[in-house]
Amino acid sequence: MSSSKSKKEKRTFKVTFLPFDSTVDVSMGTNLLDAARNANLPLKATCGGKSTCGECAVKIFRGKFRKKTSAVLSEDLVKQGYTLACSTAVESDLTVQLPQFQEISLKNISSSQFFKVYKDNISAIYEVNPVIKRILLQLPSPTLEDNYSDLKRLERELQKTIKTEDWDCTYSVLKKLAGAVRPGGKVFVTLLKSGKKWTVVDVEKPPEKEGIYGVACDIGTTTVALNIVDLKNGKILGTAASYNQQLKCGEDIISRINYAQKPGRLQELHDLIIATINNLIEKAARSARVSTPYIYYALISGNTTMIHLFLNLEPRYIREEPYVPTFNRIPIVLSRDLGLNMAYEGRVQCGPAVGSYVGSDITAGLLCTPLIRDARKISLFIDIGTNGELVIGNKDWLMTCACSAGPAFEGGGIKCGMPATDGAIERLKIKENGRLEYKVIDGVKPKGLCGSGLIDILAELFIRGFIDRHGKFRKEKAGSQLVESEDGLGFLIEHGNSCYWGKNLTITERDISNLIRTKGAVFSAISLLLKNVGLTFDEIDSIYIAGGFGQHLDIESAIRIGLLPDLDRGKFHYIGNSSLLGSYLVLLSERNKEMVEEISGRMTYIELNTEPRYMNEFTGALFLPHTDMSLFPSVKKLIHT
Amino acid sequence: MSSSKSKKEKRTFKVTFLPFDSTVDVSMGTNLLDAARNANLPLKATCGGKSTCGECAVKIFRGKFRKKTSAVLSEDLVKQGYTLACSTAVESDLTVQLPQFQEISLKNISSSQFFKVYKDNISAIYEVNPVIKRILLQLPSPTLEDNYSDLKRLERELQKTIKTEDWDCTYSVLKKLAGAVRPGGKVFVTLLKSGKKWTVVDVEKPPEKEGIYGVACDIGTTTVALNIVDLKNGKILGTAASYNQQLKCGEDIISRINYAQKPGRLQELHDLIIATINNLIEKAARSARVSTPYIYYALISGNTTMIHLFLNLEPRYIREEPYVPTFNRIPIVLSRDLGLNMAYEGRVQCGPAVGSYVGSDITAGLLCTPLIRDARKISLFIDIGTNGELVIGNKDWLMTCACSAGPAFEGGGIKCGMPATDGAIERLKIKENGRLEYKVIDGVKPKGLCGSGLIDILAELFIRGFIDRHGKFRKEKAGSQLVESEDGLGFLIEHGNSCYWGKNLTITERDISNLIRTKGAVFSAISLLLKNVGLTFDEIDSIYIAGGFGQHLDIESAIRIGLLPDLDRGKFHYIGNSSLLGSYLVLLSERNKEMVEEISGRMTYIELNTEPRYMNEFTGALFLPHTDMSLFPSVKKLIHT
Repeated sequence: MSSSKSKKEKRTFKVTFLPFDSTVDVSMGTNLLDAARNANLPLKATCGGKSTCGECAVKIFRGKFRKKTSAVLSEDLVKQGYTLACSTAVESDLTVQLPQFQEISLKNISSSQFFKVYKDNISAIYEVNPVIKRILLQLPSPTLEDNYSDLKRLERELQKTIKTEDWDCTYSVLKKLAGAVRPGGKVFVTLLKSGKKWTVVDVEKPPEKEGIYGVACDIGTTTVALNIVDLKNGKILGTAASYNQQLKCGEDIISRINYAQKPGRLQELHDLIIATINNLIEKAARSARVSTPYIYYALISGNTTMIHLFLNLEPRYIREEPYVPTFNRIPIVLSRDLGLNMAYEGRVQCGPAVGSYVGSDITAGLLCTPLIRDARKISLFIDIGTNGELVIGNKDWLMTCACSAGPAFEGGGIKCGMPATDGAIERLKIKENGRLEYKVIDGVKPKGLCGSGLIDILAELFIRGFIDRHGKFRKEKAGSQLVESEDGLGFLIEHGNSCYWGKNLTITERDISNLIRTKGAVFSAISLLLKNVGLTFDEIDSIYIAGGFGQHLDIESAIRIGLLPDLDRGKFHYIGNSSLLGSYLVLLSERNKEMVEEISGRMTYIELNTEPRYMNEFTGALFLPHTDMSLFPSVKKLIHT
Repeated sequence: MSSSKSKKEKRTFKVTFLPFDSTVDVSMGTNLLDAARNANLPLKATCGGKSTCGECAVKIFRGKFRKKTSAVLSEDLVKQGYTLACSTAVESDLTVQLPQFQEISLKNISSSQFFKVYKDNISAIYEVNPVIKRILLQLPSPTLEDNYSDLKRLERELQKTIKTEDWDCTYSVLKKLAGAVRPGGKVFVTLLKSGKKWTVVDVEKPPEKEGIYGVACDIGTTTVALNIVDLKNGKILGTAASYNQQLKCGEDIISRINYAQKPGRLQELHDLIIATINNLIEKAARSARVSTPYIYYALISGNTTMIHLFLNLEPRYIREEPYVPTFNRIPIVLSRDLGLNMAYEGRVQCGPAVGSYVGSDITAGLLCTPLIRDARKISLFIDIGTNGELVIGNKDWLMTCACSAGPAFEGGGIKCGMPATDGAIERLKIKENGRLEYKVIDGVKPKGLCGSGLIDILAELFIRGFIDRHGKFRKEKAGSQLVESEDGLGFLIEHGNSCYWGKNLTITERDISNLIRTKGAVFSAISLLLKNVGLTFDEIDSIYIAGGFGQHLDIESAIRIGLLPDLDRGKFHYIGNSSLLGSYLVLLSERNKEMVEEISGRMTYIELNTEPRYMNEFTGALFLPHTDMSLFPSVKKLIHT
């Protein structure tokens, strides 16, 4: 090897992968698939880099590269800038978008629709009375007769609107106060209430503005969503959502906890979620024309692991028996201690959790239901994400448990699965003639199926007899629609030429088996929870379903596959991202904050991890819809007609 | 000039002046007096640098220098390493000790003596119950049945000793908790009480130690003193005192406030006081064998300006009409926000002030008197430092004012004056035969006179008829003891060969005039305060005198010069550094903290700056002992016999 060649080959370039902003140094000529793997990024390539599966398609925004031509990508995609990572060689610094992590549609987290319908039928109060306030005061100048200290004069004026004897102020207010209140005149005062005490957290002179804003945020294992809220009137001014950048460190909470066990990794996970939220704050603030230094309060909900990582706390005890977290109720934290892009004196309140596997996303979610208002009716609350959490009870008692559902309903572990975003099939029907009809989010060519679409296809395949009760293809019925793919036999949902990625959209037996395990985990948890409280399915008055299925979970399909119990359809209510909604309600109202803390304190948690009966229940639920068909009379009738 | 010479001359060196640790860059050959002036340091040289006055003697510890021989310094001093700054040229980096800023004697701030005598006769409670505690807990491991979160389990155990429902914890505890309490066992918990709320501020596993220490500190304009206290038993483990490093920026509070008005100067003053305190903490902690990360609490008292500078707060409003400070009651501040050498979660509480010129040194000082215990007796409290502060009243009412006394009684502005430290004459008598007898602190050769010595010499000169009522020498009486010096005619206190600095110790008419102005300022304030409350001198039951005069202020002398009113001698009590003592009492006991806050809230402050009658009173007090001799019957009798 000549020295000049060796020199040239040794040149290294920076490849930046969006949306994670992960940068990796690679040498000239490295292929992008290897670069992504070096960066520890989840870029799939079932064919192992032979340029045949087409899964590793990426979009390159900036930089020089060399690529082999491949027939796998449609001309249309190539025109849009897509290339296969496995056959693209780095020749300069590059900026690369990972396609499966595109922007998340905001339709699924819009709350205005929800409030129109449910506002008067939820446990929370819909009022604007946050624990943080910004008040415009007219302060008199001090005189020889009125010689109160600056702080005392400020308190005296505040006393006219806020009745308390218990005042405090921060060190940064100590430092700013004289400059802000001399010689008197208008001053903006920002105050935080904690118990009966009011703390002055900021003082500013005009021309600073009067605005005060808050953030309500749901940290999901897969996606993160937030609202920017005007704390003067409660209006949601901006919404943003994206993937959790921690995804590259593992898809579910157990793999994140494991990832955190090596030195520096907890900090990395913490930094990734902070970066994710900061990006969202910036995006939502920009669209809402809100200046981030006026964001004084954030209300964060999420499962217990996500909250531990958000706060940079050791999560390993969550995963170890006896599954006890460090905290359920978390004191207010300074936003600057976490590195959030907010006011210098911003405060962060994480919602209260019940235990290691029932987090503040659930307690916040309960506020969006009437579950805890009524002492007579018994309701069931189900949140299905990567984990499934259940709550049963009423005003007087609450029992809760969690099960590891897996990411199937969020599109994880399913070849044609994807989150509920642009290009996702969210509803699907198989007609009498065997042809498929479907609805795609945003009406583009289909890219895959989100949770509600996956539940539909499973239900339809089963009801039409294309699969048996074990989820195996019945070739005598489905034969003409079964196609071979790299992953084995699959049911053809759409031909490649009608699909966004130019490849056939199919669902395989392995996918179906994953979906059945997921629905089985949820249903057996419901079943066991009921047994624990000595109730039968019939005694449930209402079922509230939260989760990221997409906007239109079809309850009928969910019952047909045995995910939800076979009850009167009027009892079911799909409430969307109730963790985000609940966070918003708690952000807005001190009484809701007290309510959610009260709820979390009296929920009884049942640990399924150590419950031997759970495995029995689960085994019974691994059929379509269930081993015990008597539990699903409406489905039984349907199959036998 | 040859280029090589120019090169050589351009070489610069660092000169470091102790005890301020001020470093200045000077070029080769610069004399040390100029270097000190470049560093803005207060090095006196009355002769203007002609090597004749000997005032600029410094001690050089390290480095190369070139000096002219001078007869002014005794051989003894030269042997000890002294040299005249004005005739010493810098030839390398140097470390130089400024002699007038030597170590301060701890005798004057020792409190054990005080408590022996007064413990049962003070307003404060002598109890050990600080607002910060460190508790050793035995925590059980979590189990499936006992599945409280770490924080909840901790609270449950704490509840057994501390009854409250109002818990909180800091973010650093959030981060450390899991590591400290798993798998269970012994854990040290540090707790702070604020109102009814307890905040867990630290958690640690053994082998960390159980100790918890506090600092009680008095920040004076001239000197700073502190005690390190064992918060488990209240024992004072170490004491340290030194000059306030801010001295180089001005001798009194007005010059410090003025100094702070240029950009960066407030920060400089703040840094200097923090450095002063950190040095003292280190010194006291070393001698007490206390590790500074176990110091969790500091109780700071001082005049309002000192406290503003300590907290890095704009002080200028203190000096501007209507003389209103930013704060009187100051919330707890984190020690790390100030840069103090304490525990990471250390807390700093500044005592409550009454106004711009009556600070927390006074409110703390009141605790060391019985003044606020009794509703029948009327007491007067006087603290004489660079400022003089007065309080009159009893259990039911308190009236206070302040006057600008000047630093004369602390040795400032007086040629032979010095603080009450080694070598200071603290007691002095002129015998019948005109010879002087005196007592020197630590028994070394005299260096000068501290406050009590100055009061004695003034009284003796007056009573023996060596000066008249205006403070002018009566040559017919004092003739033989008057000597000429650079500053004019002076009364010889001691011959140079018996003095430490080898120079005559004299007191001039200018010195005497300064002392008279100082005592006049204090007395006229007492007089006006009494008139304000409609009382006469006779109605005062007790007078408590605090200040840095040295250990033995002679009340008789103080009355003879007209500093204190001519009352029954049994009514006077000299209580030393009551600001430090009071800080110690407040540090130790939550009830004392509440008491001092209560006192500060109900003291009525009279502003002398805007009181026209004050000038009249002052003019009358510019005589020895006073224009109105009927106020001083015992002195009148003494002169006329």
